[in-house]
Amino acid sequence: MTRPEIVDELIAFAGIPSVSTDPAYASHVTEAADWLAERLKRAGLDAVIVHQTPGHPIVTAQWLRAESAPTVLVYGHYDVQPPDPVESWKSPPFEPQLRDGRIYGRGVSDDKGPLLIAIKAAEACLHGSGRLPVNLKFVIEGEEECGSPNLEAFIKMHAGELGADLVLSADGAMWRPDEPSITVANRGLAALEFTVTGAAKDLHSGRHGGGIANPLHAIAALVASLHDADNRIAVEGFYDAVKPADDAARRMIGALPFDEERYLRSIGAREGVGEKGYCLLERQWLRPTLDVNGLWGGYQGPGGKTVIARSASAKITCRLVPDQEPQTIVRLISRHLQRNCPAGVALDIRADGHGSKAYEVPGDHPGLAIAERALQEIYGKPALRVRMGATIPIGLIFREALGAETIFFSFSTADEDYHAPNEFFRLSRLDEGVRAWLRYWELLGAERA
Amino acid sequence: MTRPEIVDELIAFAGIPSVSTDPAYASHVTEAADWLAERLKRAGLDAVIVHQTPGHPIVTAQWLRAESAPTVLVYGHYDVQPPDPVESWKSPPFEPQLRDGRIYGRGVSDDKGPLLIAIKAAEACLHGSGRLPVNLKFVIEGEEECGSPNLEAFIKMHAGELGADLVLSADGAMWRPDEPSITVANRGLAALEFTVTGAAKDLHSGRHGGGIANPLHAIAALVASLHDADNRIAVEGFYDAVKPADDAARRMIGALPFDEERYLRSIGAREGVGEKGYCLLERQWLRPTLDVNGLWGGYQGPGGKTVIARSASAKITCRLVPDQEPQTIVRLISRHLQRNCPAGVALDIRADGHGSKAYEVPGDHPGLAIAERALQEIYGKPALRVRMGATIPIGLIFREALGAETIFFSFSTADEDYHAPNEFFRLSRLDEGVRAWLRYWELLGAERA
Repeated sequence: MTRPEIVDELIAFAGIPSVSTDPAYASHVTEAADWLAERLKRAGLDAVIVHQTPGHPIVTAQWLRAESAPTVLVYGHYDVQPPDPVESWKSPPFEPQLRDGRIYGRGVSDDKGPLLIAIKAAEACLHGSGRLPVNLKFVIEGEEECGSPNLEAFIKMHAGELGADLVLSADGAMWRPDEPSITVANRGLAALEFTVTGAAKDLHSGRHGGGIANPLHAIAALVASLHDADNRIAVEGFYDAVKPADDAARRMIGALPFDEERYLRSIGAREGVGEKGYCLLERQWLRPTLDVNGLWGGYQGPGGKTVIARSASAKITCRLVPDQEPQTIVRLISRHLQRNCPAGVALDIRADGHGSKAYEVPGDHPGLAIAERALQEIYGKPALRVRMGATIPIGLIFREALGAETIFFSFSTADEDYHAPNEFFRLSRLDEGVRAWLRYWELLGAERA
Repeated sequence: MTRPEIVDELIAFAGIPSVSTDPAYASHVTEAADWLAERLKRAGLDAVIVHQTPGHPIVTAQWLRAESAPTVLVYGHYDVQPPDPVESWKSPPFEPQLRDGRIYGRGVSDDKGPLLIAIKAAEACLHGSGRLPVNLKFVIEGEEECGSPNLEAFIKMHAGELGADLVLSADGAMWRPDEPSITVANRGLAALEFTVTGAAKDLHSGRHGGGIANPLHAIAALVASLHDADNRIAVEGFYDAVKPADDAARRMIGALPFDEERYLRSIGAREGVGEKGYCLLERQWLRPTLDVNGLWGGYQGPGGKTVIARSASAKITCRLVPDQEPQTIVRLISRHLQRNCPAGVALDIRADGHGSKAYEVPGDHPGLAIAERALQEIYGKPALRVRMGATIPIGLIFREALGAETIFFSFSTADEDYHAPNEFFRLSRLDEGVRAWLRYWELLGAERA
């Protein structure tokens, strides 16, 4: 069998290191935007535009010739996570490789593969019949991995052109490889980082040890103070806006075919650990978290170096549940850090002000039923409604700017190691995804007709 | 004034990046040993040998033609600390630079400058009068910065050839730039490092956050558990062998002209912090410490990366006081870490088994009085007897293997940023040092005669 064209296109697309969080990759982010615009044009879409923003470009396109049919706005992103730690990759992160029915490379699953599916579906239709069963608009950003700082302003500014009956997101992920699912909720995000500084320079720990504060001890004490013995977040006020876990949601989770042991084995974890009083999926889907994503100070090389480091730093993100405000959370954590900062070190807290609230699709939204029908047809079994612990800020952004709800219709899978080394995407999802997107548009177009 | 030859020699010597703790520098360590052997030969010493060891070479030399005069064994080391963080250096660490009466470069103060002083003193004497007032032996190692793992065995094996009436150490440091001093005691060292590991790989902190243990939280909890609220070390049994602080030593410390505010300003620290119940110098000189020298895990780059890191690590060293055994201390800390390790992570502790006990020169040793006289003559004021928080394992090694006590007669100064960026050595010490070493040998030779 010859390799489908879409595989080569994904190899080309994922070969562009469009890491949006690290300025060193900026030119490649632009390169990916241009590649994408070219690809959209070739698919037969109209009005392909690469819009400059204060950050990375946003790419839009449209096809609006399905009179009286509904309009779908397709969302995706072309930026990717950093590849660190690069040494843990089996093949280079930006030289995508096919192995065992999978493609390995940074961004193949999040979100370049799923995004390409939507474009190839449009192309198949337009090149085949010359038309689409719905009106289609695309809005594709390059800053999803750094919290979409410019997307909201862009969408508000272009609300007229981007208006749609619903948003179909190519971003998101199926819960499992072996069961179709639709994600109906995701958590919000708040982020900050901080540094504690002791002396003006690294000091010899023999000469000076015992005399002055060790910033590594101070940051450990601060990080340790963020959770209590029950793994609850010990930041005063953190849970104030959190409603008690919804009974219906807990029942839905209880009814899912979830094998905790198997899940833990799949990620190589020894045991589930988290907030007391909640099962593992409840902790991941219904409860907020505070996780340190990076912690560092002093000497990390081989052998020893007897220093008292000048400073130590930590990066924190929180996953939020409905009604928690990111800015409030950052403020509460900052206050906690200030109150608990040990003697002898100065505390510097940095937060760039971006963040996202949690999002939930109304359970009776007709777009959900269409997604379930399309997936049932492709996979021959009912799709599960699941939730997601991660953050996709667009749900709230589109609801507020366009009055449209977002259906997450991605064909990546939660186990595909995005945000980790050896990210991969299942090649079988490419074909399944293209068929499902086509079917979705057909069903939606037929419903209105 | 033309530049003294010793300055050019120090520039050449310190230009060799003989970092002993990092295998990447191994060939340069050998290069430094060879440079040194050549230098000793040119000074007129006999029997210069570069001895291979399981680690880095040890260089010996001798001049034994002062019949019936005492024999002095000179100790020093030609290896240096790693240069990290390299970006904090004003000039490259291995391209020594003269600025404001100082020479800047890794190792110039610890210990290449002070070691060169001893060699140049011997050379001055031998090239001048063709003889020395004492018999001289040199033993110069290349593993001081990694805890001298092979020195003890070497000295025991060569105890016959190395036997001496006393050891003069070129390693050590004056307490202050403006007052001559002799260090009469130093603390011991125990070291270990450990890693906590959660899942088999880095995980997306949105997807998985709340479900499983975060190794960064675990390591912070472990590090925070090592001290109590009074900054005492909270490891059970840690203080068992520690005798109550010696009254005489406390009085000696109380009588020293020490301006705590000035000291703190000099290192850019806000305030003194440490074990409750002791003044700053007592904490640095008489009390044991436990300091984390490195702590790391997760993402440290620019921007954000929402991961739960697979693992986190820390490096620890302790400074010990008399009667604390390094192996016992490592065992107690290991037990503490095991007992306090949070759920959901595996703990791996590594200790290479080396360590040093604390050392103190007997107060009535005649070699101390000679050092005081030599310094008084060079500097025109009495030398202070001080202690040192850092570790020089050789005192105990020489006492046990050769029955000789060690007088620390170094001309580096405690503020010269060894073990930190921008290490420097005061050029004026070169001349003062050569004169003081010559005077020491003269006084010692005259005493016996």
